[in-house]
Amino acid sequence: MKFCCYCSAELFYDIPKNDNRHRYICQRCDIVHYQNPKIVAGCIPVWEDQILLCKRAIEPRLGYWTLPAGFMELGESSLEAGIRETWEEANARVEVDDLFAVFNLPYVDQVYMMFRARLVDLKFSASIESLEVKLFKEDDIPWGELAFTTIKETLKCYLDDRSRGHFQLHTGDVIKTDGRYDFIATLV
Amino acid sequence: MKFCCYCSAELFYDIPKNDNRHRYICQRCDIVHYQNPKIVAGCIPVWEDQILLCKRAIEPRLGYWTLPAGFMELGESSLEAGIRETWEEANARVEVDDLFAVFNLPYVDQVYMMFRARLVDLKFSASIESLEVKLFKEDDIPWGELAFTTIKETLKCYLDDRSRGHFQLHTGDVIKTDGRYDFIATLV
Repeated sequence: MKFCCYCSAELFYDIPKNDNRHRYICQRCDIVHYQNPKIVAGCIPVWEDQILLCKRAIEPRLGYWTLPAGFMELGESSLEAGIRETWEEANARVEVDDLFAVFNLPYVDQVYMMFRARLVDLKFSASIESLEVKLFKEDDIPWGELAFTTIKETLKCYLDDRSRGHFQLHTGDVIKTDGRYDFIATLV
Repeated sequence: MKFCCYCSAELFYDIPKNDNRHRYICQRCDIVHYQNPKIVAGCIPVWEDQILLCKRAIEPRLGYWTLPAGFMELGESSLEAGIRETWEEANARVEVDDLFAVFNLPYVDQVYMMFRARLVDLKFSASIESLEVKLFKEDDIPWGELAFTTIKETLKCYLDDRSRGHFQLHTGDVIKTDGRYDFIATLV
């Protein structure tokens, strides 16, 4: 960020009055340009004992498998965002049961909110965002070809809960250290 | 938004290629300026049967009572944000039990994440952001002087759960219609 999006003047990087951290501030109109984490909302769409995954048609991680999820948009709820992303990535309609996982990714300033959901029917298909959309039984999940650590951890939590016969909310952080991603469950 | 924050050229408002909604796009460098909802993280700090509230020293809703909460910052988790806001608004240290409420406010593009927490000690006090910080028993909560609908609903859910002896995650939306705010619980 170098210029004010309201007046085009140059920004400087300083601590505003009554604040405690550096922000981008406009030299001309004094507006503080705050930056905040983004929400990625998605679903775990299930049909009987199978889970719907999408093979990504876009970077990052093109060609790897993921649960349908994407950035929450202005004017919608996180639940609506999860349902919309499932439609956009898999042409799949779902009914949502509950909020299942809230995972922080502070190294990319994202918070994943994943909902547990049931497919309404089997009319899913690849969209412009997916190369392939497919139902997987537990033994067939392509663990080595999953797109993101959050997706792997969401699936592990889901399958653990299912085998125990009891679903609960999962919270945690994905931490990146020296290029390695570790998951830390919190509030357990 | 009128100018590109990277190159200062004028923005135009159009649907980017492979997208389905209008965005601000730079005429010169083609960068799409996405806008997304923000997370407000906070705590319900309790001491025995009392709840800590803060009287706001800043607009909006200056002089009204709230639970400590504020915008999540880059580089932190939602849990860290809730703990930090409780420290900044009430000089109070807490230990967090669980994520208690996730409420969407699509009319202001915010998602509230409220954590259930216990005060570590009674060394809380008003900060630069609060005129007064005080513990309230259930019968003394100033329902008519609460700052926001989300805060009122969080407190109602908390007290309902407490009276039932069982805490659970609450999800819902605050909807604004003709200047009136309504709360709709979801996934119940």
